[in-house]
Amino acid sequence: MHDSWPTSPDDAPGNAGGRPRQDGPSRRGGPERAPTGSRAASGAGDVDLHLDLRVGPGSGGRRAALERALRDAVRSGRLAPGSRLPSSRRLAVETGLSRGTVKAAYDQLTAEGYLAARRGSGTVVAARSAAPAGRETAAGPAPASGAAAPPRFDLRPGSPDVTSFPTSAWLRATRRALGSVPSAAYDYGDPRGRIELRRVLAEYLGRTRGVFAEPERIVVTTGYVQGLALLVRVAAGVVAMEDPGLPFHREVVRRNGGEVVPLPTDGLGARTDLLGTFPQADAVVVTPAHQYPTGVTLHPARRQALTAWARASGGLVIEDDYDGEFRYDRQPVGALQGMAPDHVAYLGTASKTLGPALRLGWMVLPPRLVEPVAEAKLYSDFHTGAVAQLALAELIAGHGYDRHVRTSRLRYRRRRDLLVSRLTGPYRAGGIAAGLHALVGLPPGVREEDVRRRAAGLGLALGTLADHWHEPSPHHPQGLIIGYGTPGEGSYPAALDALVRTLGHG
Amino acid sequence: MHDSWPTSPDDAPGNAGGRPRQDGPSRRGGPERAPTGSRAASGAGDVDLHLDLRVGPGSGGRRAALERALRDAVRSGRLAPGSRLPSSRRLAVETGLSRGTVKAAYDQLTAEGYLAARRGSGTVVAARSAAPAGRETAAGPAPASGAAAPPRFDLRPGSPDVTSFPTSAWLRATRRALGSVPSAAYDYGDPRGRIELRRVLAEYLGRTRGVFAEPERIVVTTGYVQGLALLVRVAAGVVAMEDPGLPFHREVVRRNGGEVVPLPTDGLGARTDLLGTFPQADAVVVTPAHQYPTGVTLHPARRQALTAWARASGGLVIEDDYDGEFRYDRQPVGALQGMAPDHVAYLGTASKTLGPALRLGWMVLPPRLVEPVAEAKLYSDFHTGAVAQLALAELIAGHGYDRHVRTSRLRYRRRRDLLVSRLTGPYRAGGIAAGLHALVGLPPGVREEDVRRRAAGLGLALGTLADHWHEPSPHHPQGLIIGYGTPGEGSYPAALDALVRTLGHG
Repeated sequence: MHDSWPTSPDDAPGNAGGRPRQDGPSRRGGPERAPTGSRAASGAGDVDLHLDLRVGPGSGGRRAALERALRDAVRSGRLAPGSRLPSSRRLAVETGLSRGTVKAAYDQLTAEGYLAARRGSGTVVAARSAAPAGRETAAGPAPASGAAAPPRFDLRPGSPDVTSFPTSAWLRATRRALGSVPSAAYDYGDPRGRIELRRVLAEYLGRTRGVFAEPERIVVTTGYVQGLALLVRVAAGVVAMEDPGLPFHREVVRRNGGEVVPLPTDGLGARTDLLGTFPQADAVVVTPAHQYPTGVTLHPARRQALTAWARASGGLVIEDDYDGEFRYDRQPVGALQGMAPDHVAYLGTASKTLGPALRLGWMVLPPRLVEPVAEAKLYSDFHTGAVAQLALAELIAGHGYDRHVRTSRLRYRRRRDLLVSRLTGPYRAGGIAAGLHALVGLPPGVREEDVRRRAAGLGLALGTLADHWHEPSPHHPQGLIIGYGTPGEGSYPAALDALVRTLGHG
Repeated sequence: MHDSWPTSPDDAPGNAGGRPRQDGPSRRGGPERAPTGSRAASGAGDVDLHLDLRVGPGSGGRRAALERALRDAVRSGRLAPGSRLPSSRRLAVETGLSRGTVKAAYDQLTAEGYLAARRGSGTVVAARSAAPAGRETAAGPAPASGAAAPPRFDLRPGSPDVTSFPTSAWLRATRRALGSVPSAAYDYGDPRGRIELRRVLAEYLGRTRGVFAEPERIVVTTGYVQGLALLVRVAAGVVAMEDPGLPFHREVVRRNGGEVVPLPTDGLGARTDLLGTFPQADAVVVTPAHQYPTGVTLHPARRQALTAWARASGGLVIEDDYDGEFRYDRQPVGALQGMAPDHVAYLGTASKTLGPALRLGWMVLPPRLVEPVAEAKLYSDFHTGAVAQLALAELIAGHGYDRHVRTSRLRYRRRRDLLVSRLTGPYRAGGIAAGLHALVGLPPGVREEDVRRRAAGLGLALGTLADHWHEPSPHHPQGLIIGYGTPGEGSYPAALDALVRTLGHG
């Protein structure tokens, strides 16, 4: 009934003594490819090395086995050029060979050009120009991300000025966080994220964005993309998305099982008044504070229509508040979520305020979605990286986040003003009350592709409305999307010059 | 043909001037709920505050509107107790009210108990014992993670000793990384992860685990769970998983569209010799270095059978090398991936060497899978947090990671030795050659549930084989899974005492 577990060869008596085995070759003997190896014992500055020592009849003894193993490891590319090898003393202890044997092997391979002696670093793998032989072909598809050269002037929308990432503040916050957190914080944690961050986010979002937020209803995500992906997996079917909108987000929805239908927009924002004709939509994704890409703020009547639709249909509103903090002139527009917290999932992000590479986002969820989303998160990546969460919590709690947002707001506002003042003649900027990008309409007869081509000739990259429609059409309005938040602080004036020169020809 | 974009009310002339509007109430007049707000202007130490000021006929004027807005914000819970409010001077500028009006409103609400004056912090929201009224019900499901009290002695497998997280080394590595990386590193990046980390991982994995790794074939993931999830979404259907094995990973496979079939194991590891009878398996997940939970090392013949199956069927081997660095007595066993890099996805993690909360894992992929997996990653969370990646790259490049692994290995080996020496009579530990847990077989007549109950009575939590089978059965062998890596360094002796006392009754 209760069989004891069969004894594994691994657990032979004597192995629990704790001393490293002195026997280098495989216990199983023979020339078969037994995956034994050796490992250098620990020592300050020393490194681990896995070697495959095969010894058998006719194979020339242990020194030859060591030389073969080293040669194979280098030739196959497994040991990369520049890799450090263990000292001869350490490797001798581990393999059971004499130190003299190991040194001789190292010397032989150095003479052959596989290894090199580095003063202060011991023995390293030599830099080699010959391609490694005897290795399974590594040919594969092209790298996922293109290696295209960046444009000389970049006014494409979507990124903040990353040269202004607050490195010192982030480091300080990280140090304070790690200095004060309990050890258990380094263990597997709550899929919703660190409670420290959810508490300060609840306070911060309530205070600055008018969001009804409780820590229990917040889920921290590895960026906005993951939040959208989780919501679609949990709550959607058919998802209405603004047209024009960001194609990448449409693809995120599709890849996570959603079906995308276009929701038209106009000068008052998304046509939420039309939602009555979308009987099958399970969710609607909107950018109410600053429509992406037109820059329009969702009109109050459209907000009312949207929440009324959600209440009547039980559908979910997904609020993408990607740049809600960057409001310049008018009173800021509070989050739509505050009107109907049970029907709106509010999604925010540190991507535009700090930097996209942090992959830090947050969702404030209707109560009925907290458990399912947390579960989906658990089976997606367990939870978002905790050290980054704790650093952000510190930054917000110490008001460093507020300060950085305000400083950034001033800088981006100056850029916005500069853009507006430089645009003359038939070109006017729209969507300028907020955010990091503006929509510049084109006068009759001027086409987006022509402007883009002229811009490219000047080394300038910019966005167009054409990049954003769900479906192309000759009836769509034309316009440029100018990401004035993108360039570094020192690069912006020149980028603006290039834009003006581009438009000057129109 | 080329319609200009309809003008939005947002962009009324004069708004580009840059001065904050002095007009507090809604421009649209009337008592309708117009989502206007006010925001305190920037200033050192000051904070943003979103307020909903509604003024209309019969509503009592601006001061009353301000008091109402503040009262509502506090009562609804949107402004959390302890939140700082802007200074009266700042709020006056932003709302267009006189400073005296704002001060009077603050004083009134302080008298009413909503606000409090804090020396040095200005005005804050008072701590309140009364439940907020007038708010949408926040009742929802119980929090995703239980709030059960941790056991007094924790010998459950699955976590390393998190009290030994190398905080100083991690901070140093973070500082060095942020000090040397270009600004573009803070922007959206390659879904496969930072090239800095992929390069050092390729070198490290080649050197220490015998993995054939090139940076182009590595994808950095937000922990092992995400790696497994992405592989299942891309490459699998039917997934054979070791029995016994970790139930959580089985559920990860199912939640990502996979169908799990059990792969039996014995004293030589997974019964890969049976894979010929699994004609429909698209993938096999194995833990070859140290089977979870039995601790057995996958025998060479079983490794051969597994790679032969993969070559013959085109199926994918998923190698979970979760604790491969912790090998104590015998020569370390190289990764299985080295035998067939085109057929094995090698997955490693920093969870057991540094800490699970970092959510840092990596995959070395067959070339044909790199593009599809990177794409799936892109639409899952774009990429893993970059600062953590860069810190890990620094830690590995500076050999701090090697040092920490070696130091940890020594400490865990001492714990393993202590465990073995304390187990007497009919109890023997198996799977002890490596890793952070051991399997303790039970003598005839002793049942897992009885041991667990006795242990609980002494405040001791441990694992059992019963936790791990795909399906329960009276014919399964019985055994305890002792996670000797879990307790803090100071807690381990007492935990071991509790275990010995528990078993002493048997």
